[in-house]
Amino acid sequence: MNTPELAALIDDLAVANHILVNEGVLDGFGHISVRHPQDASRFLIARSMAPGLVTPEDILVCDLEGQVHDAQGRRTYVERFIHSEIYRARPEVNSIVHSHSPSVVPFGVSSARLRPICHMSGFLGAQVPVFEIRHAAGESTDMLIRNQELGRALVASLGSANVALMRGHGNVVLGHSIQQAVFRAIYTEGNARLQSEAMRLGEVNYLTPGEAQAASDMNDQHLDRPWQVWKRRAQKAMG
Amino acid sequence: MNTPELAALIDDLAVANHILVNEGVLDGFGHISVRHPQDASRFLIARSMAPGLVTPEDILVCDLEGQVHDAQGRRTYVERFIHSEIYRARPEVNSIVHSHSPSVVPFGVSSARLRPICHMSGFLGAQVPVFEIRHAAGESTDMLIRNQELGRALVASLGSANVALMRGHGNVVLGHSIQQAVFRAIYTEGNARLQSEAMRLGEVNYLTPGEAQAASDMNDQHLDRPWQVWKRRAQKAMG
Amino acid sequence: MNTPELAALIDDLAVANHILVNEGVLDGFGHISVRHPQDASRFLIARSMAPGLVTPEDILVCDLEGQVHDAQGRRTYVERFIHSEIYRARPEVNSIVHSHSPSVVPFGVSSARLRPICHMSGFLGAQVPVFEIRHAAGESTDMLIRNQELGRALVASLGSANVALMRGHGNVVLGHSIQQAVFRAIYTEGNARLQSEAMRLGEVNYLTPGEAQAASDMNDQHLDRPWQVWKRRAQKAMG
Amino acid sequence: MNTPELAALIDDLAVANHILVNEGVLDGFGHISVRHPQDASRFLIARSMAPGLVTPEDILVCDLEGQVHDAQGRRTYVERFIHSEIYRARPEVNSIVHSHSPSVVPFGVSSARLRPICHMSGFLGAQVPVFEIRHAAGESTDMLIRNQELGRALVASLGSANVALMRGHGNVVLGHSIQQAVFRAIYTEGNARLQSEAMRLGEVNYLTPGEAQAASDMNDQHLDRPWQVWKRRAQKAMG
Repeated sequence: MNTPELAALIDDLAVANHILVNEGVLDGFGHISVRHPQDASRFLIARSMAPGLVTPEDILVCDLEGQVHDAQGRRTYVERFIHSEIYRARPEVNSIVHSHSPSVVPFGVSSARLRPICHMSGFLGAQVPVFEIRHAAGESTDMLIRNQELGRALVASLGSANVALMRGHGNVVLGHSIQQAVFRAIYTEGNARLQSEAMRLGEVNYLTPGEAQAASDMNDQHLDRPWQVWKRRAQKAMG
Repeated sequence: MNTPELAALIDDLAVANHILVNEGVLDGFGHISVRHPQDASRFLIARSMAPGLVTPEDILVCDLEGQVHDAQGRRTYVERFIHSEIYRARPEVNSIVHSHSPSVVPFGVSSARLRPICHMSGFLGAQVPVFEIRHAAGESTDMLIRNQELGRALVASLGSANVALMRGHGNVVLGHSIQQAVFRAIYTEGNARLQSEAMRLGEVNYLTPGEAQAASDMNDQHLDRPWQVWKRRAQKAMG
Repeated sequence: MNTPELAALIDDLAVANHILVNEGVLDGFGHISVRHPQDASRFLIARSMAPGLVTPEDILVCDLEGQVHDAQGRRTYVERFIHSEIYRARPEVNSIVHSHSPSVVPFGVSSARLRPICHMSGFLGAQVPVFEIRHAAGESTDMLIRNQELGRALVASLGSANVALMRGHGNVVLGHSIQQAVFRAIYTEGNARLQSEAMRLGEVNYLTPGEAQAASDMNDQHLDRPWQVWKRRAQKAMG
Repeated sequence: MNTPELAALIDDLAVANHILVNEGVLDGFGHISVRHPQDASRFLIARSMAPGLVTPEDILVCDLEGQVHDAQGRRTYVERFIHSEIYRARPEVNSIVHSHSPSVVPFGVSSARLRPICHMSGFLGAQVPVFEIRHAAGESTDMLIRNQELGRALVASLGSANVALMRGHGNVVLGHSIQQAVFRAIYTEGNARLQSEAMRLGEVNYLTPGEAQAASDMNDQHLDRPWQVWKRRAQKAMG
């Protein structure tokens, strides 16, 4: 049986699915996972389903080879290798969002780089890398990260960044916790929207690396504040 | 009396009307049809009315000459010839959406071509044709496809594509099923919005034809997932 | 006591206020009027209040000099002269909307002209005039049409058009009926949004004057269809 | 115990928090304050929390040194010095909004200046200054106004304006009353959105200083009208 700590984490993971849908980061597709608190070689993620409908009962366990361990024999998403390979390569990461967050997609298909336009998105750092699947698997893929090899190629593009764009597909956002990953996914979308507007007004004065780091550290002290608002709003919208 | 299969299809067609309104593809105008499962020379469509208010009782039968067969003598849309001529020319097509989907209209009146910007819209293929009614009927029409001849002209522009734009009017989206046509109509709107943004950021790196085909084939395996979400959301918004 | 016909018209005018707020044409400001069906020298309009809160009891009678005739001594909007002078000059007009409809404002302050981009907005005709209050009253007004003289200057700019923009302020939309004025106000806003998008994609292929006229005549046969949808949606949102 | 006047003001301050969230000016962050009606050297502001969740019980008292006076020992926002230093320098100001209002952010990071595009935003005056924190505190701050010195630097940038932008951060809006500050915050956001659109259509014809002043004076006579609408809408959305 789940410990109270694990049960609370699973509840948060279900809520995070609803928040990300309600705030426009996820639609019928995309997923969020959290590393298993008692086994760093496993992570929790919903079975293959629309994120807006996820309940705690839909959460299952997957290992870093992408194998599901589920008494009911359920399956999870094809792209579970995004999660498994990042958890393997980045021990400090405990939660990952993969989305097709709409405002971010254009930055993945043009030469314009996503950069932090204000203090809420300092976590974007000096640059956000773009993963090009053609370099790893040629010009006729279905764009999905559907095996370990593609997961490792994505990890290589990601480097030490908190966010990576996937050309013609979406993006991946990393955090120390579910709350941080959700915060970053929502403000990545917001930054893309504002940066796109600002670029049309003229040359943009971005945060310096020092400002980005200081602002990101500061925001990490307030992650629970927007989480409570988003949670309440998602429960109201979906309840 | 309707078979259970036909009754379920009619229910889905009513739901599809609500989904397309709720997701912003249709407003007070536009329509979706489905080919009759027991008679390939007929199709089902609502009587002439706002799509957001359609119920299963509003669905009637129309043939490929655009004649309505309805015991109550009701009429359907003026533009039923969009549907009848496409069903005649494209035997693999079983569902058609005609909309004024807002983000798509600008692509019908400029020289910029709608192209697949990400894997969700691979079905757009290498190009989306634009139908120019002036070539078929001169410079003073009311823009509507109001007879068989105009329907055939639209079919000629469409060729083998899944989507065609209609200059100064809207677009038409084809699918093998209601679920596929709805999926394509919603992601056509989304692609237009994102492509327009991306074009302002610089040159756009579109899907290759191979990527578009592979991504489209892959998405066809998951059509039910967003359908359930859209259905639930439409029922909540309109219930 | 009001005839049933007049009572129904007053109900429609209250509903029109709610529709225009709910569809984003009006915010806390702006107004819609209808010519009195039994006295062409008078019109019906709400007392000075937020349009989203108007009920049939808030409707009062105003004459073409801008004098209110109200047993309770209530006042109406400062800008009633927009309505009175247009009703005086344009006998075929029976309903007028004045709004700060957001997407339209940019077209009033630049040299780009609002033009019909698709068949839903054929009523915009060959051109939409822009009223410049500086020509009538100098460079330091509060921008309001606050007397008969300014009303007549607006009428002169309007000419025979159905829509006129007011620089740095908003717009005015005319119709034969409440339903037509509401339809035109909503699609004027929509056209501005789409035209602005299309202009960024390249040169725009607008409706010809013949297409605009034919499409406008055609739409006039279907005014009740979107009205029922907008009404239902407004009642749901505000009820 | 609070006087009825003070209790009503505190109720309005809680409502203002909800309005600003519901109208898209505030998200999980930002704050609004009001000067204490019985002591010009103090002001009322919520404890450090998400503005959408503020109730009258969450309002506390802060002085112009940024010290909180609260029997329960609660804390308020780090950036209280925005409020304390503006109240000290500008005796005519009685209410202040600090937000990350999204459409305004791009104007803070480019050379384009925010200017009044229509009569609703005449209060923007001839120019809106931009505060650059780098001039006061170097290139590696966390962007926050976290002490009196930074508050004074912001006040110096602000001069006699009603609105100042904060580069890479947000903006601050001043008013004689809660209602005026809320009105200005909402129309600052709206003006930014419309100005950004208008600038893409060509050269923009802004209000003259005389028009801006006259329109602002005129709007000040109608502050209660939109307040009632926004209040009702916020209560409906959040209730």
